[in-house]
Formats: sequence, C-alpha cells, structure tokens
Amino acid sequence: MEHDLPRSLPLRILATGQYTPSLRIESEDFDRRWNKPAGWTRRHVGIDYRHFASADEPTSLMAAMAAQDALQRAGLRADQVDVVISVGGVMEQAIPCTAALVHERLGLAGSGIPAFDVNATCLGFLVALDLVAGAIAARRYRRALIVAGEVASAGLNWNDTDTAALFGDGGAAVIVEAAGPDDGACLLASHMETYSEGTRFCQVRSGGTRVRLADGAEAYAAASQFEMSGRSTYRLAAQKLPGFMQTLLSRAGVSVDDLKLLVPHQASAKALDHLQRALRLPPEVLVRILQTHGNQMAASIPLALHHAVERGDLRRGDLFAMVGSGAGLSFAGAVLRY
Amino acid sequence: MEHDLPRSLPLRILATGQYTPSLRIESEDFDRRWNKPAGWTRRHVGIDYRHFASADEPTSLMAAMAAQDALQRAGLRADQVDVVISVGGVMEQAIPCTAALVHERLGLAGSGIPAFDVNATCLGFLVALDLVAGAIAARRYRRALIVAGEVASAGLNWNDTDTAALFGDGGAAVIVEAAGPDDGACLLASHMETYSEGTRFCQVRSGGTRVRLADGAEAYAAASQFEMSGRSTYRLAAQKLPGFMQTLLSRAGVSVDDLKLLVPHQASAKALDHLQRALRLPPEVLVRILQTHGNQMAASIPLALHHAVERGDLRRGDLFAMVGSGAGLSFAGAVLRY
Repeated sequence: MEHDLPRSLPLRILATGQYTPSLRIESEDFDRRWNKPAGWTRRHVGIDYRHFASADEPTSLMAAMAAQDALQRAGLRADQVDVVISVGGVMEQAIPCTAALVHERLGLAGSGIPAFDVNATCLGFLVALDLVAGAIAARRYRRALIVAGEVASAGLNWNDTDTAALFGDGGAAVIVEAAGPDDGACLLASHMETYSEGTRFCQVRSGGTRVRLADGAEAYAAASQFEMSGRSTYRLAAQKLPGFMQTLLSRAGVSVDDLKLLVPHQASAKALDHLQRALRLPPEVLVRILQTHGNQMAASIPLALHHAVERGDLRRGDLFAMVGSGAGLSFAGAVLRY
Repeated sequence: MEHDLPRSLPLRILATGQYTPSLRIESEDFDRRWNKPAGWTRRHVGIDYRHFASADEPTSLMAAMAAQDALQRAGLRADQVDVVISVGGVMEQAIPCTAALVHERLGLAGSGIPAFDVNATCLGFLVALDLVAGAIAARRYRRALIVAGEVASAGLNWNDTDTAALFGDGGAAVIVEAAGPDDGACLLASHMETYSEGTRFCQVRSGGTRVRLADGAEAYAAASQFEMSGRSTYRLAAQKLPGFMQTLLSRAGVSVDDLKLLVPHQASAKALDHLQRALRLPPEVLVRILQTHGNQMAASIPLALHHAVERGDLRRGDLFAMVGSGAGLSFAGAVLRY
C-alpha cells in the first residue's frame, strides 16, 4: 500500500503563558555548597540562575498559574477551552493524572471539560501538540490548553555537580486552536524518534511500580534522584540528530535556512551549542533561555516559545521549528507557521 | 463560528493481546487474611480470583508480553508498528515514560519508532484510541500499538477490605491501523468528561513531586497506598453517567439498543450492575471479566475487549461501545464499528 504523505494541519498558537517560582538560586550558591571558586558552576553549566519551587508551589499550581497567564493574554476564561492536557515529565502524584489537578485549580471542577496527561518526559509538549493538531482536524476539539509544571528540584542529587545545577523549576502553558481557512497558521510537520537503547541514560527509578519503599528507605531515596549518564546521552543524541532533523525538515518541505527561529529544548549548554554547530544556525535563530532558567524539563520548550513570542521574535506568518531530545532516549520536533 | 460535528474516523482494530501474571490469588485468601467466613470477600467484591504480578513481572514486561501476543495474532513483527503508546495508570518509574521501557523489551531499541505515554488513569486506552484515530487520519501513523501494564498490587492497602481485594494486575495490548476505504471499520464517536471535584475520591498521593521521602518514611508509605472514597465516587459517577452516555451516543448517532456489545471498565461489581441497570442492558451485551480479573485499572478496558474478540462475541461489522469512569473523576467512551 502506498505511504501517503502526512498532512499539514491548520493550527493557530493563540497564546502562551509562564509561571516563575519564587526562589531564585544563583550559580554562586552552588559554588559555595561545593567549595568551588566563585564562577565555577556558572562556567560549568552555562547557567547564571534558575528558580526552584517552594513547598507552596506544587506542580499543578505552577501549571495552572501559567495557564491563567496564557488565558489572560488570549482574553479567555478557562471554561472556553475544550480540553486540558498536562505534559509535565514528572507527575504531582501517581493517581490521578496531573491534568485533573490543574483542571481543579482552574475552577473547572464541575465543568466536564476533559483532562488527561501526555508523557514523553522533556518532549511531552511536542507530542501533545501533534496529537491535538490531529484531534482538532478531526473536530474533536476546537481549542486546547496544554500545560507543563515541573518541580525538577524534587529529584536532584545535590552532590552531583553535573546535574544539580542544570535544572530549574517552572510552569508554561500554550493555547492552540483550529486555524481559520485564511489564517495560514499551521503545523507543517511533526516527527518523533525513540531509541530505547538509551532508556537508562536519563532516569528516575522510583515513583512507579518498580522500586518500592518496602525495599528499604535508603535504596528508595537513592532511586528517587535523577541519574544521568551525560556522555552516553550526548553521544547517542549527536549520532541520531542529523538523520532526525533531515526527516523532520523534509516532511515539512523546508530547509533549515527557511526557519525564522528554532525553539529547542533547553537540555544543556553543550546540547544547545551542538545543535547550533550541527545545523550551522546564526545565533539569533536559536532561542536560548537556559542561562536564566536552567533545564525545566517538559516546561522548557513551551517556555522558550513563550519568550520568543514575548520578545516579538516570532510574528504571524513566520516559519519556525521546535525540537528536542529527552529521556527515552527520544527526539521530537515540529515545524509550524506561526 | 459554527460548531462542526466531529468526524467519524476510519480505524480498524487489527488485533488484541493479553498477559496474565503468574500468581493467582483466590478471594478465600483474603477471607483468611481478614478472619472472615469463607465466601465473604467473594460476595463483598464480586470477584472469585485475580492475578498479581511477581517481582519478575514488572509493568513494562506485562505490557510487552501482551503486545507480543497481539503482534503474533496480527502476524506482525514489532518493527511493523509506527508508534508505541503506553496507557498504564501508574508508571514503572518516574523517568522515562513506560512506553520507552516497553519499546526496549520489544526489541525496538535502535528502531527510532516513537514511544510515549498517555495517562488518564483507568481511561488511558480510550483517550489514546481517540488521539491515534485522529493521528492516523492526519497520516501521522499507519498502525499503532497501544499497551497497558498494571501492577495495582504495588499500591494496595491490605487492611482496606473495600479496595485490597478489588484490584488485579495484568497486561493488555491493542493494535489499530488505518482502515481501507471499503473496510467500514471506524471510530464513530469519542467523548470524555472530567469532573475534578472528584480529584481526591481516588488517589495515590505519592509517586510524584508532592509527597517526598524526606517528609518521613511512615508518611511516605501511607501516601503510597491507594485511597478511595467509594461512596463519593459512586455518587458522582451515577449522577454524571446519564448525561455522559447521552452525549456519547448522540455524537455517534446511535442508540444503546444498536450496540452489539458494551465493553466497560471493570471498576467494581457495583459499578457494572449500575451501568447495566441505568442503560437497561441485556446481560449478554455487557462484557464482564471482573469476576476472574478484578479491576486492572487501564488494562481493564482493552482486556475486556480482548476477551470479547476471543470469545467470538464481536464480529467484523458489529457496532459496539467502550466506556468507563476513572480517577479524576473522568468518564470516557468510544463507539466503534469493529
């Protein structure tokens, strides 16, 4: 049977929003903790500061606050969206899904508006965006609210100088809707690849059915910390990136030079530098918010998009792409006309 | 703007599969544990026996074994699907998503086939089915593998006579693909409603960013157990069911009498009895596997579908529906032509 080409799907990014948690942690704070000379952490991770959530800022609250920000910018009430999708890489609690908790915080408790989660660790937003574009084309929804709240600080090993200073907490939200016939806004192409040979390169072993507290509190505590084999991740990601990008761009029928902006996952300074070199991107094309945010997991891509929109770097009609790699190991990307 | 009617989407359920864990637990075992007269548990929960996973049967293994069963029935290799979606209600570990772990077990480590999770607690299969139908219509995928592995026994409070004997472990898998133009197989309608006023009626508070081991091992252990307010859940579910069913069926343009089968979530005997009464269903229309499986969370609906197919109760061309309520509190349903 012939393989039909994927369709370009009409889709308009209506508004974006953010939530920044209250605690700002300077990289100098890590220098002191680790007895390093001033400036060491900043140079090592390429981050000046990041925010961490306080006990009063749970995952669903940050997602809901970002959603309220996006709703306000769109001039909408929460009950004017048709679905609430949470794409955070780590849940607030095992049951129910985080979207239900966000739904409640948005005052939708009795609304009947559907809520569910999509999880692809740091890439959930791109997966959800593609699924929503299909669902909108199928007339399931007219308007979708996609949110991400991340409390990365809940799972960091404070003695690991490679990862503890790399992450930040926060919330992001994006509202998308069916684009009108004359709108031009669309999702040209979407693509994802998973290489589960990298399943153990980035992981938190606890939090599910695998590791139980009954196995011992010490073992459980160790399993609750984020574990990353940075070198293996980088090697596999660098190896697969060119083929992934080629497929994504060829599906969209564009070249990298056609892109006004590339909005990447803010994985690390090294990953961003690699992306810029590999794709020969002018600095102004690659959106970087790592330096003042850290890697905010699944909130990173929608938050970087929010910054690009807020700065005025993205105008209606602009062609742009969002890409990232995440635990799994997976790549995901989308090419859109804004 | 006019609200277009949702589209019926061509979709063929190609094959289903299951995995039954090794440990079979009789309801009499609970009678003895609780010092109840023989037969008490069986009468109380309406379940003869259920299976529990051993330490060698993690979530992703059960999902992968069910997938292999479905692939074999379809005469396909794992690398002949275009996406792997895990819909289990509880993850195997916090990072990465369970689908990546299943992907690896299916020998897809280097394949690049995308993998991600959809989480709507017990309703993930129905949410994923609808999203996949839209993605297939948008030509993103031709064929999707949807899997659910559930180790409910990992989070049960063995002293709670209402919930401990109610759940069972297991795996289920469904392969769906684009239906040909003359096939007739389709998803006529899909519908979901979330009432987050019921967020706390069914929950496991640990497993995410909310409850931390640093809060104390005892508190953490308590938060790791499934908590259910059965009465509140039942009351809210019973109140919302009629409206939900009416919307689902009217979207599909069918009445309940047109359905050859109703494949429900196996929430509890009381929930199944209520559904049967409320919809005035002849006993042969409602698929029940609770008695020999318990409530297997997100594996329940695809597993009940598998049983219906295996028994020969569902033939090509038959109109049927799948429905359920789950933590959130949410309802989801789908009307299909098989």
